Amino acid sequence: MSLFRPDVDALEGYVPGEQPQESGWVKLNTNENPYPPSPRVVHAIQQASQGRLNVYPDPLGKGFCQAAAELFDLDPEWILPANGSDENLTIIIRTFADKNDLIAYPYPSYILYETLAQIQGTRHARLRLEPDWSWNLKLNRPLIEQSKILFVPNPNSPSGNHWDHDIIRAIVPPAGVLVHDEAYGDFVDEPHRMELLHGESGRQMIVTRTLSKSYSLAGIRFGFCVAHPDLIAGMRKVKDSYNCNTLALAAAEAAIRDQDWMLENRRKILGTRERLENSLTELGFNPVPSQANFVWVTHPTISHEEIYQELKQRRILVRYMNFASAIAASNEHSPATVNGLRITIGTDDEINVLVESLTEIVS
Amino acid sequence: MSLFRPDVDALEGYVPGEQPQESGWVKLNTNENPYPPSPRVVHAIQQASQGRLNVYPDPLGKGFCQAAAELFDLDPEWILPANGSDENLTIIIRTFADKNDLIAYPYPSYILYETLAQIQGTRHARLRLEPDWSWNLKLNRPLIEQSKILFVPNPNSPSGNHWDHDIIRAIVPPAGVLVHDEAYGDFVDEPHRMELLHGESGRQMIVTRTLSKSYSLAGIRFGFCVAHPDLIAGMRKVKDSYNCNTLALAAAEAAIRDQDWMLENRRKILGTRERLENSLTELGFNPVPSQANFVWVTHPTISHEEIYQELKQRRILVRYMNFASAIAASNEHSPATVNGLRITIGTDDEINVLVESLTEIVS
Repeated sequence: MSLFRPDVDALEGYVPGEQPQESGWVKLNTNENPYPPSPRVVHAIQQASQGRLNVYPDPLGKGFCQAAAELFDLDPEWILPANGSDENLTIIIRTFADKNDLIAYPYPSYILYETLAQIQGTRHARLRLEPDWSWNLKLNRPLIEQSKILFVPNPNSPSGNHWDHDIIRAIVPPAGVLVHDEAYGDFVDEPHRMELLHGESGRQMIVTRTLSKSYSLAGIRFGFCVAHPDLIAGMRKVKDSYNCNTLALAAAEAAIRDQDWMLENRRKILGTRERLENSLTELGFNPVPSQANFVWVTHPTISHEEIYQELKQRRILVRYMNFASAIAASNEHSPATVNGLRITIGTDDEINVLVESLTEIVS
Repeated sequence: MSLFRPDVDALEGYVPGEQPQESGWVKLNTNENPYPPSPRVVHAIQQASQGRLNVYPDPLGKGFCQAAAELFDLDPEWILPANGSDENLTIIIRTFADKNDLIAYPYPSYILYETLAQIQGTRHARLRLEPDWSWNLKLNRPLIEQSKILFVPNPNSPSGNHWDHDIIRAIVPPAGVLVHDEAYGDFVDEPHRMELLHGESGRQMIVTRTLSKSYSLAGIRFGFCVAHPDLIAGMRKVKDSYNCNTLALAAAEAAIRDQDWMLENRRKILGTRERLENSLTELGFNPVPSQANFVWVTHPTISHEEIYQELKQRRILVRYMNFASAIAASNEHSPATVNGLRITIGTDDEINVLVESLTEIVS
């Protein structure tokens, strides 16, 4: 007798990227920011640590909401804080998708959407992207029409490409919500200022953001949703009352109020990204031009898994992703089997070490 | 057209106790610990704040698990950390209960169980307690037999009474799990050392714990489950990968390793509790003898809501709880309508202020 829900029994479970806890690794596998967070964040945490940790946090995180609202020129009722953007996604699914509803997402993209749909026990579908990572609207329109939730990471992962706003408006499901997952949104050439939410289709759109990447705060687990207050109100009913702790709320507010710090790190990362893309091309790789803090790269002849293993032996971690086997394991018919390496943009020194190693490996 | 799940549309949403963010209140309404956390906790947070917040936390929280395992003389695989005990409960429901499954809980008890069952869209049932807060096994046996999850807060809230282990073993659902919610477990005369998990019925039991109450850490949102590793493995598939942040993990490990600090605060609270119970009795109230850090109290003639309002005017917050209206709103037939006041054990000074005010109000 299994005590678990059948959906849970069937679940393999999401496997996050490797997180070695010891030092000595060049860690380019989970899209963390190589630079530290703002000193104001550290100060805010230290202040909060001496405050009243014996009492519950503000359940609505009003201080953070106010700061985020100012950044995007919205009312605070448009903001919902969460314990990491993964919790954003979980709250959204539990608010909008029942067993018989369809959750869809482009493929290949963020694998967690599928895992979360499986946990919720909903129907789910992959919307196959073209080999150049563009949308095939004709092929996917029927599934989009049926979707209760359509998750769209933009920039996409693992590819790092960015779809323009016309395509996003064109794929809002007629009786559902489009979740514009902007985990990497600050690395786009022209970051989104929430203008997508202002039009008619904006009433069916939720933007998700995280402080893990651009704000260098993967360790504090902080994300937030931006959406019309009617949508936020429903999600608030589903979230745990005190889903963000006092320390994370203080850190997040300080982080978002120090835009200069974030933008300076962004500037460095974009410079390093360009340098890496050029080096990869020179070494015979085919990088996808990136609008994120990572680069998706394939090589025409050498096995990507082998390159990953060779790098790992040198204590350099990149992410080897094999969507081919996932496609084979599904019942779906697909020509677009894909595998490759996703490389996070580290510091210049880290990328130098990587490029040296890659030079050895491919020569 | 509503975009929400029908279950979410139907939901009123859990209303947590009032959390005034300004100072100047005697706050005896949400069972927080009036004493600060261990200085070692503050130190651990400050250390962690200067560490690598740009990288993800350890997804398994191994340091904390090790410390908790040592405390209970178990292997670390028996421990699952969570973002507050509310997340414990959410993870458990999403792991074990499908739409057609039954979630049951004694009534009156912690209202959140019902809200979480409604969010998940499962069947749910209140197991009516006797007027003296004991179990009526004959009445409730049929529902217990059907339950996939039976939540039992022990000590119970709002009553503060503690059921002995024989009754707990007797109500494990034959094809489900019993969740022994020990939010207030450290305030019991003889705290549970996980011996319930060792017997045969222990394979179907999950203990939930929180650092919010006895460890004075409501602000960091940290709870954990203790259960057989087979059960923990299923729950791990459901939880968000990085559900606890780096700061909370550091704080929690430091807290649980400083038992002396917790036990000294416990000692003070138990002394104050006895004093409060005596004062309440002298004033003509009927307190239920408590094994928790709060006292449930009724008065034979004066309206509890009025007392609550009178206290609030004096900037003293206690929790007025009216289970009568909830019973009336349900379709269930019940003689046991209950309302009263749940008073958190504050400092001696706070309880002195309360008792003075109550003396004025009832005289």
